[in-house]
Amino acid sequence: MLKPSLRGEKMPASPIRKLVPFAEAAEKKGTKVLYLNIGQPDIETPPSIVNAVKEANIPILAYSHSAGNISYRKKLTGYYKHLGIDLTSEQIIVTAGGSEAIVFAMMSCMYLEDEIIIPEPFYANYNGFAVMAGVKIVTVTANIENGFALPPIDAIEKSITPKTKAILICNPNNPTGYLYSDREMKQLEEICLKHQLFFISDEAYREFTYEGIAASALHLKKIEEQVVVIDTISKRYSACGARIGAFITKNRELYAAAMKFAQARLSPPGLAQILGEAAIDLPENYFDAPKAAYQSRRDLLVKRLNAMPGVFCPNPGGAFYVVAKLPIDDGDRFCQWMLESFSHNGKTVMMAPASGFYNTPGLGKNQVRMAYVINNENIDAAMDCLEEALKVYPGKVD
Amino acid sequence: MLKPSLRGEKMPASPIRKLVPFAEAAEKKGTKVLYLNIGQPDIETPPSIVNAVKEANIPILAYSHSAGNISYRKKLTGYYKHLGIDLTSEQIIVTAGGSEAIVFAMMSCMYLEDEIIIPEPFYANYNGFAVMAGVKIVTVTANIENGFALPPIDAIEKSITPKTKAILICNPNNPTGYLYSDREMKQLEEICLKHQLFFISDEAYREFTYEGIAASALHLKKIEEQVVVIDTISKRYSACGARIGAFITKNRELYAAAMKFAQARLSPPGLAQILGEAAIDLPENYFDAPKAAYQSRRDLLVKRLNAMPGVFCPNPGGAFYVVAKLPIDDGDRFCQWMLESFSHNGKTVMMAPASGFYNTPGLGKNQVRMAYVINNENIDAAMDCLEEALKVYPGKVD
Repeated sequence: MLKPSLRGEKMPASPIRKLVPFAEAAEKKGTKVLYLNIGQPDIETPPSIVNAVKEANIPILAYSHSAGNISYRKKLTGYYKHLGIDLTSEQIIVTAGGSEAIVFAMMSCMYLEDEIIIPEPFYANYNGFAVMAGVKIVTVTANIENGFALPPIDAIEKSITPKTKAILICNPNNPTGYLYSDREMKQLEEICLKHQLFFISDEAYREFTYEGIAASALHLKKIEEQVVVIDTISKRYSACGARIGAFITKNRELYAAAMKFAQARLSPPGLAQILGEAAIDLPENYFDAPKAAYQSRRDLLVKRLNAMPGVFCPNPGGAFYVVAKLPIDDGDRFCQWMLESFSHNGKTVMMAPASGFYNTPGLGKNQVRMAYVINNENIDAAMDCLEEALKVYPGKVD
Repeated sequence: MLKPSLRGEKMPASPIRKLVPFAEAAEKKGTKVLYLNIGQPDIETPPSIVNAVKEANIPILAYSHSAGNISYRKKLTGYYKHLGIDLTSEQIIVTAGGSEAIVFAMMSCMYLEDEIIIPEPFYANYNGFAVMAGVKIVTVTANIENGFALPPIDAIEKSITPKTKAILICNPNNPTGYLYSDREMKQLEEICLKHQLFFISDEAYREFTYEGIAASALHLKKIEEQVVVIDTISKRYSACGARIGAFITKNRELYAAAMKFAQARLSPPGLAQILGEAAIDLPENYFDAPKAAYQSRRDLLVKRLNAMPGVFCPNPGGAFYVVAKLPIDDGDRFCQWMLESFSHNGKTVMMAPASGFYNTPGLGKNQVRMAYVINNENIDAAMDCLEEALKVYPGKVD
């Protein structure tokens, strides 16, 4: 059989999805699996934005502008204006989810073998995008003990080489939920200014913050032309399946370069752009309910986790994830064991081993990521399971 | 200003879209522009498939399976079965248009600096995808005099180097409309077998053939595990804006590699998958009307072109494009002049200079590509314009 390319080989499998066969097997046995492994919100997609698609008159579903419909981009400028960010419609490219925006960012900012600095743990699919773009991820390690705050700036500076072209953060963070402080954002601004690096800021979870607000990289005036913001409607409006995101930059030349990537693939998804555009018209208080739901889940989850012997979970400021340290030998083994060999009251829990979010071998071995995308009753049931599981897990470490 | 990467620089601008500012200027002057430059059909999107989206119950627009909804993939196997092709749902990855499928194919079949052989003229965006994938396109030249048939097989064989990993064709062809014969497909099969190359076959226009039927690469039994078919609903159902395509292979390892690219970007567009799935249920005679419309347009366009002094246009067997040779010095200059300086009865024509579809410098200089995506009345008006234009164009060549 003709073999795939070395790139196909290098491409990492999704660490979030690799336990799926074990979950399926558990369900087949009749065990109810509580899914904390994946960032698919259970929040309803606002019916008004789905209805906007249903009510649209579409005689010919034609290619849109490669940067996205101008009506949508104009409305998006209003959304950012509301956040205190001045943009024009010629600084926004609508993309197929945040994913495509990251690929455009990596490809337009970086050439083959260039390096990008990312604090670890980080969203595992950045690895895949880096393989696609042929660039190298260099990590600086964030520490669970201080809640995964930005690693010391001198550690970041020490990682900079002549090949470094960009720093990438996700704020609030997936997988840690960490919300970067204004001071940390300023530190990143200074280092990008000093070393003339692009600053790629993935702000997918912008609205979901529980301790203060998320500072957008677009607020960093000194590096205004070095910033690329990655955005998406996936989590914001619980519309993950729409595949609508955005690549945003005030750097004209970078925008022009990214537009060539956008033109090659002709246009972003058309039906979902209608949905995205309608979302801008949601009432201002739209976020109150999902935000309150997430906050209450976070509070419950963090409280339950920290009440378990040997467990430590920082209280994250945003997004809908936590990374917790468990008294276990190996998160991969533990998560698989939970699905294969454990149940409590007919239930078990699926979590994501945190090792998949670290690039440095051996890190995060006793950590797991949980997405609080199920309701409080289920979170309580999941924590009951976890508590019991930790009592009997054969690989328990004291 | 921080500069984009060398890749951003290398990335080609779309040759189809670069005349857009001149067309806009012509319209501002009050000239009616007849658009033959771009493959956006004027055929109605079947209302039933748009309605399938409108009638869907979507409480949460969640991520679909990374390979696309299983219900859709299962239905797609029925579509291929009808073409005499046996596939399972685990041999299909639903993609964001044919574009994403081409990127997945190039990336999973080829590593950085590998070579892919493509007959020129070819769909210009392949260049962009090759830059994204960091691979090199090697061309063999097809000739307008024999209707852009497959170049001699020894010319293809001579282009093969140790770095060659794949041959790519588009059948029926964009931009030439050429429909590869069974004999040519067999020749390609033999050469791929002999040199152990992947055969990537872009079959976007499969249904639109006017002289016989298009042989799918999936019918080539000897290289069954070397074939990747690129598919899309864009032209088939006049649903270009949906962004739904497919990557298809019977090579299990290649499929697994491509799936890792698919998982990194999470899922293909969700709303449009509903539309794609509904399209499989269109009545068998659905294609009769659009096919008849295209065929009648082709007949008219080719007849009108060949009736003009010094013009030669082969009669293409499929798709909805022709490449014609005109008695002109330079297609880029001519197409721009048509928009800037010419009108006839208040009208002018936008065409795509063919030079953008060749990689060999200097080729196709006196050729233009026209997409017959406007009705016969407008084609007649466009040909009236072209006929008059050729009489007065200052760069006319006898």
